[in-house]
Amino acid sequence: MKDGKPIIGFIGLGVMGNSMASNILKGGYDLVVYNRTKSKGDNLVAQGAEWRDDPAGVARESDIIISMVGYPDDVEEIYFGENGIIKNIKRDGIVVDMTTSRPSLAKKIYEEAKKKGVYSLDAPVSGGDIGARNGVLSIMVGGDEKIFKRVLPVFRLMGKNIVWQGAAGAGQHTKMCNQIAIAGNMMGVCETMAYARKSGLDPERVLESIETGAAGSWSLSNLAPRMIKGDFEPGFYVKHFIKDMNIALSEAENMNLDTPALKLAKSLYDELEKQGKGSCGTQVLYKLIDG
Amino acid sequence: MKDGKPIIGFIGLGVMGNSMASNILKGGYDLVVYNRTKSKGDNLVAQGAEWRDDPAGVARESDIIISMVGYPDDVEEIYFGENGIIKNIKRDGIVVDMTTSRPSLAKKIYEEAKKKGVYSLDAPVSGGDIGARNGVLSIMVGGDEKIFKRVLPVFRLMGKNIVWQGAAGAGQHTKMCNQIAIAGNMMGVCETMAYARKSGLDPERVLESIETGAAGSWSLSNLAPRMIKGDFEPGFYVKHFIKDMNIALSEAENMNLDTPALKLAKSLYDELEKQGKGSCGTQVLYKLIDG
Repeated sequence: MKDGKPIIGFIGLGVMGNSMASNILKGGYDLVVYNRTKSKGDNLVAQGAEWRDDPAGVARESDIIISMVGYPDDVEEIYFGENGIIKNIKRDGIVVDMTTSRPSLAKKIYEEAKKKGVYSLDAPVSGGDIGARNGVLSIMVGGDEKIFKRVLPVFRLMGKNIVWQGAAGAGQHTKMCNQIAIAGNMMGVCETMAYARKSGLDPERVLESIETGAAGSWSLSNLAPRMIKGDFEPGFYVKHFIKDMNIALSEAENMNLDTPALKLAKSLYDELEKQGKGSCGTQVLYKLIDG
Repeated sequence: MKDGKPIIGFIGLGVMGNSMASNILKGGYDLVVYNRTKSKGDNLVAQGAEWRDDPAGVARESDIIISMVGYPDDVEEIYFGENGIIKNIKRDGIVVDMTTSRPSLAKKIYEEAKKKGVYSLDAPVSGGDIGARNGVLSIMVGGDEKIFKRVLPVFRLMGKNIVWQGAAGAGQHTKMCNQIAIAGNMMGVCETMAYARKSGLDPERVLESIETGAAGSWSLSNLAPRMIKGDFEPGFYVKHFIKDMNIALSEAENMNLDTPALKLAKSLYDELEKQGKGSCGTQVLYKLIDG
């Protein structure tokens, strides 16, 4: 603590994490940071953040430790590795994993943290790089509600729609809901735009007719125009979407839930990755459908 | 023509057609109506519409003949039957089929109309019974643009988002785009809500987190709350959705377009119809997924 404000640790300074950490700094908090590739933290150090050489160094000095890394395996490593967070965290510390990761891993972190007398939240986000930059992410939080309330002022620097969803893992489950909805809808949007083109319609005029009604969606309004222009730059990477769908499919299987559309979407995106399009934006599915 | 205003004929006075015809009457037009079940036109006759006993009777007296019936077969019958529109229409008449029907049938009506020296538009709608009642339908129009402009004042009494999409059939193709987008999205929404429930989340709180972001859609905001409440009353009938998907699938096949999500949606809705749920609202798919 410093001047009554918790010291914030931030691990994972990629496109998302860097913007989120920067917003915390701008909020007047002391920030201690670590990232696998050191140079990605340079801008934050220049703004006053302190650099540490491993997660342990961050954990030892922070009251709230936020992680925003790539894959569940990365989460495992920074939490449970020899120089990881759990072994080195201060008493009464709070860990907040904002990576989109496995609900079961969120529960494991929660349990292991509890054994150490510390607290854990899972708090994945949606809203992409622009949402992160503008501090308007949607943040879906699992864990103890009283801990959620303690971290809320920090969440408010990063997000706008911040909802406590329930016990440990509930944040990750909610993020899975988000991705499942996107998966079904992306197929519908891509098949729609391929049908529009092949039937000789003017795709932009089709959008004019259908985007404000029952067929309307964020993806139709935001990604279909990129498909029409042939813009397949990543807003959200195919490879990350596949990671999320794999988590959702395995969780659905555990609860005996058959999700045929999610399975189909996963198989189509797997095909895209095989074609070397893992680093394209998810709207590249249009190319696969349009053939 | 009467006082410079065309006389409007209206054939098909179901839930949608009745509201649409009523809005035309309220707009100050003379209206001549026919419906298979006569009683469904009683309210319109009470408001001043003239009843005729077959499509021929309507066609002989109207300058613009609008049809809004159930299935492509019904369209065939009222246009090409012995007492049908084409055989009995006045010179310079305009026919406007607003039924959701086959693009190829729209082209056939256009060609047959042309041979008779009359004009044809295909103009299916979206917006449901509430949109019809409030005169705020989305109307997607195919046919000659100059004819579209002549009918536009009448369309404006029924709809709000009125777009000329191109040559004959383009209106129907656009409506198919609308239905294809809904098909993919409905699967995503239903799988999402089933996952939310089975994972122990509070489904309403999940919507709070995800409906304003990239997962957002009309169906998520409007139909998911009905799924949560167990309300499967029809906004849009399963059986009508199946009709539309059959048209879209056969058109897609004709243009060598594979639409795996649309196929999957169709197979799931076929299963629902087999279960006797053809007259439920499309959101009943949730029950099939949730098991």
